[in-house]
Amino acid sequence: MEPGPTAVLLLVCPDQPGLVAAVAQVIASHHGNIVHAEQHIDRQSGRFFQRVEFELEGLDLERSEIAGALRPVVERFAMQQDLRFSDEVPRLALLVSRQPHCLYDQLARWRMGELRAEVPVVISNHEDHADGARAFGIDYAYLPVDPDDPASQEVALLDALRAYEIDVVVMARYMRILSPTVIAAFPNRVINIHHSFLPAFTGARPYHQAHERGVKLIGATAHYATDVLDEGPIIDQDVARVSHRDAVDDLVRKGRDLEKTVLGRAVHRHLEHRVIVYGNKTVVFD
Amino acid sequence: MEPGPTAVLLLVCPDQPGLVAAVAQVIASHHGNIVHAEQHIDRQSGRFFQRVEFELEGLDLERSEIAGALRPVVERFAMQQDLRFSDEVPRLALLVSRQPHCLYDQLARWRMGELRAEVPVVISNHEDHADGARAFGIDYAYLPVDPDDPASQEVALLDALRAYEIDVVVMARYMRILSPTVIAAFPNRVINIHHSFLPAFTGARPYHQAHERGVKLIGATAHYATDVLDEGPIIDQDVARVSHRDAVDDLVRKGRDLEKTVLGRAVHRHLEHRVIVYGNKTVVFD
Amino acid sequence: MEPGPTAVLLLVCPDQPGLVAAVAQVIASHHGNIVHAEQHIDRQSGRFFQRVEFELEGLDLERSEIAGALRPVVERFAMQQDLRFSDEVPRLALLVSRQPHCLYDQLARWRMGELRAEVPVVISNHEDHADGARAFGIDYAYLPVDPDDPASQEVALLDALRAYEIDVVVMARYMRILSPTVIAAFPNRVINIHHSFLPAFTGARPYHQAHERGVKLIGATAHYATDVLDEGPIIDQDVARVSHRDAVDDLVRKGRDLEKTVLGRAVHRHLEHRVIVYGNKTVVFD
Amino acid sequence: MEPGPTAVLLLVCPDQPGLVAAVAQVIASHHGNIVHAEQHIDRQSGRFFQRVEFELEGLDLERSEIAGALRPVVERFAMQQDLRFSDEVPRLALLVSRQPHCLYDQLARWRMGELRAEVPVVISNHEDHADGARAFGIDYAYLPVDPDDPASQEVALLDALRAYEIDVVVMARYMRILSPTVIAAFPNRVINIHHSFLPAFTGARPYHQAHERGVKLIGATAHYATDVLDEGPIIDQDVARVSHRDAVDDLVRKGRDLEKTVLGRAVHRHLEHRVIVYGNKTVVFD
Repeated sequence: MEPGPTAVLLLVCPDQPGLVAAVAQVIASHHGNIVHAEQHIDRQSGRFFQRVEFELEGLDLERSEIAGALRPVVERFAMQQDLRFSDEVPRLALLVSRQPHCLYDQLARWRMGELRAEVPVVISNHEDHADGARAFGIDYAYLPVDPDDPASQEVALLDALRAYEIDVVVMARYMRILSPTVIAAFPNRVINIHHSFLPAFTGARPYHQAHERGVKLIGATAHYATDVLDEGPIIDQDVARVSHRDAVDDLVRKGRDLEKTVLGRAVHRHLEHRVIVYGNKTVVFD
Repeated sequence: MEPGPTAVLLLVCPDQPGLVAAVAQVIASHHGNIVHAEQHIDRQSGRFFQRVEFELEGLDLERSEIAGALRPVVERFAMQQDLRFSDEVPRLALLVSRQPHCLYDQLARWRMGELRAEVPVVISNHEDHADGARAFGIDYAYLPVDPDDPASQEVALLDALRAYEIDVVVMARYMRILSPTVIAAFPNRVINIHHSFLPAFTGARPYHQAHERGVKLIGATAHYATDVLDEGPIIDQDVARVSHRDAVDDLVRKGRDLEKTVLGRAVHRHLEHRVIVYGNKTVVFD
Repeated sequence: MEPGPTAVLLLVCPDQPGLVAAVAQVIASHHGNIVHAEQHIDRQSGRFFQRVEFELEGLDLERSEIAGALRPVVERFAMQQDLRFSDEVPRLALLVSRQPHCLYDQLARWRMGELRAEVPVVISNHEDHADGARAFGIDYAYLPVDPDDPASQEVALLDALRAYEIDVVVMARYMRILSPTVIAAFPNRVINIHHSFLPAFTGARPYHQAHERGVKLIGATAHYATDVLDEGPIIDQDVARVSHRDAVDDLVRKGRDLEKTVLGRAVHRHLEHRVIVYGNKTVVFD
Repeated sequence: MEPGPTAVLLLVCPDQPGLVAAVAQVIASHHGNIVHAEQHIDRQSGRFFQRVEFELEGLDLERSEIAGALRPVVERFAMQQDLRFSDEVPRLALLVSRQPHCLYDQLARWRMGELRAEVPVVISNHEDHADGARAFGIDYAYLPVDPDDPASQEVALLDALRAYEIDVVVMARYMRILSPTVIAAFPNRVINIHHSFLPAFTGARPYHQAHERGVKLIGATAHYATDVLDEGPIIDQDVARVSHRDAVDDLVRKGRDLEKTVLGRAVHRHLEHRVIVYGNKTVVFD
């Protein structure tokens, strides 16, 4: 039996007694059935984080009335809130350059129904993967970079994201740095996969750097892109064992599996509204 | 700044609307400050699980009054409850046979203050580790097994556990099967480490079994001992990579690190009252 | 610089002094340059295993003469030998049922050049993935099972494998048991992915079994299919952490990433002639 | 049956045809039985690395004659060689500061016979662990640091290492930087455990740095200490998963298990003569 639609409430505020009771009380008084609730208190900063997911069926409020019902509590505790509905499906754009493994992996997840999103377009600075995208019935926007005028590609990119009414941008091994303008247009909604265990090996050619340093594990990191390269809030990371036998090409090959898996988990978590960004860190409710 | 003592409340009941609000309301109404709250709803069985930890400082109840204050909610929702205090330190016995790596590891954790427990005694069916225990200032109860009368050792073991007023029994590679009498005396309070990834390789010589089968990973499993060998509720597990190069002796050596780590995590979780047993499974609140 | 073609020699024989010298001497005497050599001695069985890879460029033998040059050593030491050339590309068939994640993943690896194989056909007992295969330019053989005559599908399957001149069969979540006839036609050349950490949870619905048992890690196992279900020689395994929060559906989702990665590694290893099967175990030279 | 003593030969030289044959031929001609042989060719640098282990029983050479027998090959191929015997047990010093978990872990491994070494002394800049060391029957050299004359402690340290005829130095969370003089006296024989996934979080308080950055995995790295802090050749690394729930204290606690395991593996590998340092990297033959 497929569960019905739910509301997801993400809350952040200064920690203080009575918070959990106050929020739960509002939902209970309207006959909401909580299916998932998780809190986190960061003792260092004194912040309270909460994710509450409750069923819409049985609730004696319309969707549009929920925010109003919560307002007294939100104001009393100075909460930042974010209210989502599980059946409001965001629109996601996949950005890719030459290496298509993350692209194909995301497309396959999407076709299998693993991503709670619509994927209307793949955008790339190369023509290579047009057939691949179209095989999945998805538009392909080829936006080449003019070396004499790189900025114009960024304008075209932003135009495309707007034209397709995109909510979430996934950089599936898109090897260009997005301008602050694009980042600002999608705050905490641009997910990038970096092919190292950040903060080790930022910047270009991380597998070459890792090989040079002689590490015994390689990593991949999914994070929200910010204006500072490879410094955004980390959503997920993972590693794989390597040895002296592995040349750079082997690191690249082994790393691809990491990148696919870590990006897959991060996008899934984001689309289920399980990630709260706070400062330069994330709270990820499993 | 060391935090003050807290109360930990573990609750299990049939899931229904209003649960979170009701519990939080009681605590808030007595000015309790919740420092950790986590819920879990098992949709399959329709059970609700909760761990709530709140500070005693500021609470307008004596410790002895907390259960009473909660009683109306507990009765209304048909809750099983377990109330603990962080400064009430349980007494833990370490059981060991010949292999002492888990014993030494637990003793070192205890000396470093990682275990929130008193450890008054090490109990063994062998004399080997008496000096080791005493070097840590801990009694050593040598309880040899008479092959003609093995049951009498079990009686002596139970006597020793009672004499030392033991609350929690940790089988740190104790290679005998405890009788149902001992198990029944410590329900969900006997923690065992089995040297395989359960349910694979139950019973004797799991590393030999693993080598014979040619697995590429070996494992260790910490679980609560029950009357059915190696079938108790699993608390934690982990694995390590092996290859054709590893003889049985190598599996044994690599496995020791797993066993120490997994047992260490399980005991730590148990002592922080983060484990709820339900049926033959555990809910482990991290 | 792409390295030129190489010969790969896989050897198994009873261990005895002089083996390494004898093989290396033959290659050196013909000016062969060894680029990878690895030995393994299984002390328990007294068997010697070796993989030697050497460049064809510079060798003063034709390909067809290599076996002859080795014959004296092979006979003297009673070696089983297998000689392969890196530029002789095997033909691989992908078998799939309803779940296509491993299929898509293998196809994407193939398109990226990660698999040293031709992939002329995808075979399935369902029609679902015909478009997917064709998008990659690959034939799709839909071989439905007649419930009244299931054996005829097996015949059709074997016919298809022969018609496409298949060397290696990859069961990419093909949920039927191959008959002994098919297995016998491809000895140690049918690679299956089982969605559990074998030998735990053999047979049907392993994620349901894992959920029921309450394990804290789930696994996937790539192995050569044999006549005994889920008992064939293991090539690779891996695990992922799960918790009480994960319903069966979550295990299935998390498991998909494991299955893709483990199958990917196993197929890669097989195609590079790095796997030797011995008894019911494998030697995998990394 | 315990195997008899073996010789271990570690070789490094420029790669060229005939290397494997030449070395194996010498050993075979003296009736040596090779029990482990592994080669590695680093294509980038064109270097050949080999570890050959052969039984002394049956060999028609005295130990003192082995180097001579190999000399022609060594000279012909311009090899650096290192010849060891498995029954020549090195003398190992454990250095520790306040945190004793790695110390206790090493001592327990040593007592269980896992370390092929004598451990005559524990050296510390603090008095804290004198009883612990003595409980294992090991001397404790307390060498306090005079803030006005820190160099004199280094002199005392070097004197102690010499007085105890130490071959290998293990920094088991010794929180001082060794002077170049000490490092130079034990080239590639000082093993340190750094509590991060190097090269991330070098220097002081890596767990605080990791917490600040919001990583989702923490690590530990065992490496040979060199004159450049945290930059020496890496022997082994591992990681553990953390989340937003983990405060710095939790990272420290979880990290201890990593540190013990990684240091344990690195010391074991070193003592079995399985590590070759080349440039700033290691070849670790498993």
